[in-house]
This record gives sequence, C-alpha cells and structure tokens, in this order.
Amino acid sequence: MSRRIIGIDPGLTRCGVGIIDVAPGRKLSFVHVSVIQTHADQELDQRLRVIGDGIEALLNTYQPDALSLERVFAEQRNLNTVMGVAQISGIALREAALRDIPTQLHTPSEVKAAVTGYGRAEKAQVGEMVRKLLGLKAAPKPADAADALALAICAAWHNTVPSVKVTNRMHGSARAEKVAAPTRAQEAWLAAERAAKTRGRRLG
Amino acid sequence: MSRRIIGIDPGLTRCGVGIIDVAPGRKLSFVHVSVIQTHADQELDQRLRVIGDGIEALLNTYQPDALSLERVFAEQRNLNTVMGVAQISGIALREAALRDIPTQLHTPSEVKAAVTGYGRAEKAQVGEMVRKLLGLKAAPKPADAADALALAICAAWHNTVPSVKVTNRMHGSARAEKVAAPTRAQEAWLAAERAAKTRGRRLG
Repeated sequence: MSRRIIGIDPGLTRCGVGIIDVAPGRKLSFVHVSVIQTHADQELDQRLRVIGDGIEALLNTYQPDALSLERVFAEQRNLNTVMGVAQISGIALREAALRDIPTQLHTPSEVKAAVTGYGRAEKAQVGEMVRKLLGLKAAPKPADAADALALAICAAWHNTVPSVKVTNRMHGSARAEKVAAPTRAQEAWLAAERAAKTRGRRLG
Repeated sequence: MSRRIIGIDPGLTRCGVGIIDVAPGRKLSFVHVSVIQTHADQELDQRLRVIGDGIEALLNTYQPDALSLERVFAEQRNLNTVMGVAQISGIALREAALRDIPTQLHTPSEVKAAVTGYGRAEKAQVGEMVRKLLGLKAAPKPADAADALALAICAAWHNTVPSVKVTNRMHGSARAEKVAAPTRAQEAWLAAERAAKTRGRRLG
C-alpha cells in the first residue's frame, strides 16, 4: 500500500507544493507539483489568504497521508523571509492537524542530504536528483517546486532510515528481505539531522 | 455607530484575545477577554490547531470590524518565541482576510504608548491603564489578556490620530465638535510609530 506525501516549501512570493506517492520498497512516483504565487504589493493578510486557500485546496484534492515542511532556523535566511515562512508554516501545520495528517519538519540541509547525499548541495543538483528520483523529463522549475518535491522525498524516506527494509529479488529467492545498510545519501542525511539536533537555536 | 475591534496577543503557551467596542467620540467599552492556552508537551501542529480554532470561534461569535495584532521584530524577543508568534499571526491574518476583516499590526511600543503615553511602560502600568480605559474593576490577568485589550485600544484610536474629532458638551452647546490636539499619549505613540517606520528590520 502506498503512502501519499505532500511537501511544502513556504514563501510569500512563491510557495512550492509537491506531492508524491511512496510504494513499499521506497519506490517513489510523482503526483503533482505547483507554485502558489502572490505579489509583494498585495496586503500581507491577502497573501496569506491566497496561500492558505491554495494549500487547503491541495490537501482536499490529494488527501495526503503525511505533510513535510521546511524547518526554519532564524540564522538561515533574511529575517523578513523567515517571518513569512513561519506565517505560512503556521497555516499549513494547522490545516494538517485539522485533517489528522501527521507533519514532519526538515531543515534544508536534511532535505539536500536526503536527495543528493550532500547537505550543502546546490539548487541545480537538488533539482536534478528530484528529476531522476521521480523519473521526470526535466527538473521541476522554479527551484521552489523542486524543493517542495525534495521535502516530500525526504519525508518519504525518513521512517525507513537507518534500517531500511528492502524487498528485492536476489539469488533466486523472490521474496528475500534484507536490512540494507544506509546509503551514502542516508549517512549524510543522518549526520545533518544529528547536527540539527545539537544546535541551540532550533525554531519551530 | 460603534465599531468592534479584536486584539490578539499571539503566543503558543498563552494567546490573549481581547474585544472592545468603540463608540463615536472614542468611547471604549469592554466586550470580551480570554486567553487560549496550550502546553509545551503538545505537538506544534496540535497547538496551532487549538489556537486557530479558538481564534476562529471568537471571530464567528463576536464578528469584529477590525483585527489588531502584534507586529514582531526579530530582535525584540527570544527567537523561539518569535517563530510561534509568527505562526499564530499567519493563521489569524488569514482568518481575518477570509472574513473581510481589515487588519492592523502594531509594535509593543506603539501599544504601550497608545494606552500609557510611554512606549517603554511596564506590564503593570499597561494593565492598570487598560482597566481604567475600559472601566473594569481589576486589571485583566494574565498580562497576555491585558495586552490583547491594549492592542484593540491602540487600533481603536489609530484612525482618529492626530486630528481627533471629539463630540463633547461644552459651553452649553450639546453637539459642539472640535478637533482636539493630540494628547500626550497620542504624541508618544506617534513618535513610536515614526521610529518603527524608520527601522530597517521590520518584520511582518
């Protein structure tokens, strides 16, 4: 039975939303990607209404089983941006809770490490790996779209690390199950996660 | 015709909500005050759900004409607190926009100056002035309750400053209208507002 995961990369100007399905054996498939846009000359409350309504509509249409959202550290970015991200994440977390959808927060470096094996990967590298992992013809554009899908992928693999159960056909045994060692990507991601846990200023 | 204003002092642990009516001539009357509480051991999404549901219920019950919310500067407070405040303010701003309720953001120093005449007034002084201005027997407790009412008062007076039209009975003329000079409180508040406008790191 596959699980459906929605990833949200919050931003007032461009809010990326990516949805994937995860089948047993960590197989990923692409479901949806979009970017909700608002303009800086709109009032803040109107921008949040547009983005909130967009997120609600996607939750209702696609009925995901889990929601993955960017975890923000104040030192990561321009502080003005951080406030918009937090305001959107507040709305998204509440809408998820209202629908009993469990939520996960992941830092950008966790997400990068999950999809590329390197916590400081460039945007282009993240886009390219998202393309490959989901079997798309081109990397999703803009970067916010790729980041939202990467957040969903990170969450999809989250509960299967480090002891990943892989059902594969080996040595003639059709149903052999083995616990795979973490891949290089998973190792890097776990390291990023541990680093995040020891940081003092983790923010909701 | 009186206007109804809701003030929200956002906080994950204690979210103050105060509602007042403003009659012509800037007359204030108390309508409601409450504090929505959640606990640090609850999941973030559940806390935001409880607070969002509480705000929605009060908007539906009291149908305010305007919403006043704390404007956050990142340097003002502990950064963890700031994120919770921003998450709640995102939810409140969206719910207001969904109901066509205009919103105002005020900094703590604007609010303090509006009710006490001094932008750095102590909590106790704010509580005492809220008590006096609304004709209450005691200052609302906890401080979050008083702050929410102070936010509503600040918004109530916002559009009537600096040229405040006061209808009062003077020299036997029952309907004399005069443009009052700003009071000391209003002067201080305008100064705080001007100062806020020139700050570089204003956050939504």
